[in-house]
Amino acid sequence: MVGSDPCHVLDQARFPTLTPTETLEKVTQFFAPFCRAGQVREIGIGSFGPCDLRRASPTYGFITSTPKPGWQNTDVVGAIHSALLVDVILDTDVNAAALGEHTWGATVGTNTSLYLTIGTGIGGGIIVDGRPLHGLQHPEMGHIRIPHDLSRDPFLGSCPFHADCFEGLASGPAIQQRFGRRGEELADNDPFWELEADYIAVAVSTYILVSSPERIVLGGGIMQRELLLPRIRQQVIRLLGGYIRHAALTDSIDNYIVAPGLGPQSGVFGAIALAATYSHQA
Amino acid sequence: MVGSDPCHVLDQARFPTLTPTETLEKVTQFFAPFCRAGQVREIGIGSFGPCDLRRASPTYGFITSTPKPGWQNTDVVGAIHSALLVDVILDTDVNAAALGEHTWGATVGTNTSLYLTIGTGIGGGIIVDGRPLHGLQHPEMGHIRIPHDLSRDPFLGSCPFHADCFEGLASGPAIQQRFGRRGEELADNDPFWELEADYIAVAVSTYILVSSPERIVLGGGIMQRELLLPRIRQQVIRLLGGYIRHAALTDSIDNYIVAPGLGPQSGVFGAIALAATYSHQA
Repeated sequence: MVGSDPCHVLDQARFPTLTPTETLEKVTQFFAPFCRAGQVREIGIGSFGPCDLRRASPTYGFITSTPKPGWQNTDVVGAIHSALLVDVILDTDVNAAALGEHTWGATVGTNTSLYLTIGTGIGGGIIVDGRPLHGLQHPEMGHIRIPHDLSRDPFLGSCPFHADCFEGLASGPAIQQRFGRRGEELADNDPFWELEADYIAVAVSTYILVSSPERIVLGGGIMQRELLLPRIRQQVIRLLGGYIRHAALTDSIDNYIVAPGLGPQSGVFGAIALAATYSHQA
Repeated sequence: MVGSDPCHVLDQARFPTLTPTETLEKVTQFFAPFCRAGQVREIGIGSFGPCDLRRASPTYGFITSTPKPGWQNTDVVGAIHSALLVDVILDTDVNAAALGEHTWGATVGTNTSLYLTIGTGIGGGIIVDGRPLHGLQHPEMGHIRIPHDLSRDPFLGSCPFHADCFEGLASGPAIQQRFGRRGEELADNDPFWELEADYIAVAVSTYILVSSPERIVLGGGIMQRELLLPRIRQQVIRLLGGYIRHAALTDSIDNYIVAPGLGPQSGVFGAIALAATYSHQA
């Protein structure tokens, strides 16, 4: 996408993720005329991960240990920078989405916020003082262990690394493996959705207790099932058990755990926000 | 404690926590001569919580919904400020400890770090860019839900709010209630210590996945049991399952999960660091 904010978009395109060479070539071809015309001076990328985000690192801007075939150790920032000669800033797709929501979406005006996507994978980003939290690497909060009651849910989990971590129990592939069909095919009154909401609620209450965000955005394909959000809110309150007595939780949970303000475009607008952050720093 | 850093301590004192009036009077009496002499210009407090840390709030500096009798809604900052007429800055005891370790202890030179205390209660603080993370309120990371295998550990948990949350399974009172005696009385070869280390490890791996700190400090009375730390490190690696491929975890876990550099004094030195932060801001 080429633009400066959600109201000023010059052009956009969408490419499937093929090999790094093919994909990055399509990306640079798309941006090249805008760069030559001086209309694009920074490119922000919200990428699948894990990525090396440490500016001082010799592999800064690389996608590192991804299971995605062919993409291990791909120098994304270097490839795009050397082809287009503009500043390139990389972050994870979920950090970008968190920043997009913070800049123009549901978490505008907060100081700390959390964005979680629940879909093919589960991942999240945290904004602190207007910037994505990095630290050692970047959060991988989809992979936390949560209580798993085998008598209620005998499915052993789909995560190749952790079996029944949160992602292994509640992501799209977990639903597919559990039932042999996609989540979209389950009816609204399927009892599974209560279990799904309960898993999401225990993860969300964990994120609240660990990082104390001022608002939480739940996005991704699975959250399009509208019955989930009200039950998640209810269960988060139940799980916190009155321990955190803050009006955001006790009186206005509907404004505390919310849907994305930018719909499915939190990430792509977030990439533009990332580019803007870079230009402010430079 | 009166001083500017761990090498320059003028005086110190310790008072039991009685009623707010009695306790705060002892505190102000201790500091009064130093304030009058101009030797103390800021007071930093690392307090039990929950506290209101939002500067813009009408109840900033209050201890709020604590279960400690008599301390609910106590204006700690206001009482000390009006008695001594110096700047007073309040944070939680664990945020102060995290800041103390960041300033002079085991996490010097990191950008993001996490301090966890495991003792009478379990609590933690996160430092981001040199400052304690606040957000909605402050982390209460001792109260996360973790997998609890009732066949291995039939104890139902001691937390009055959540029963078998992490604190409810692994704190000092949880040990006392489980065995009818204090943790100090259990032998080193008691099989419980493996369970205790496993609970701490699952919580620590959760904190890593959610907040990605560059180093983690484990303090508090229970961590004085030296056999715990090596097993916690081992179990964290096992639980992460090779998902986060960072040298800190794969090659130097002994430098990643560490004991406090300031021993039992992370909190009190942290309070001095808090006061210094305040004077830099002002």
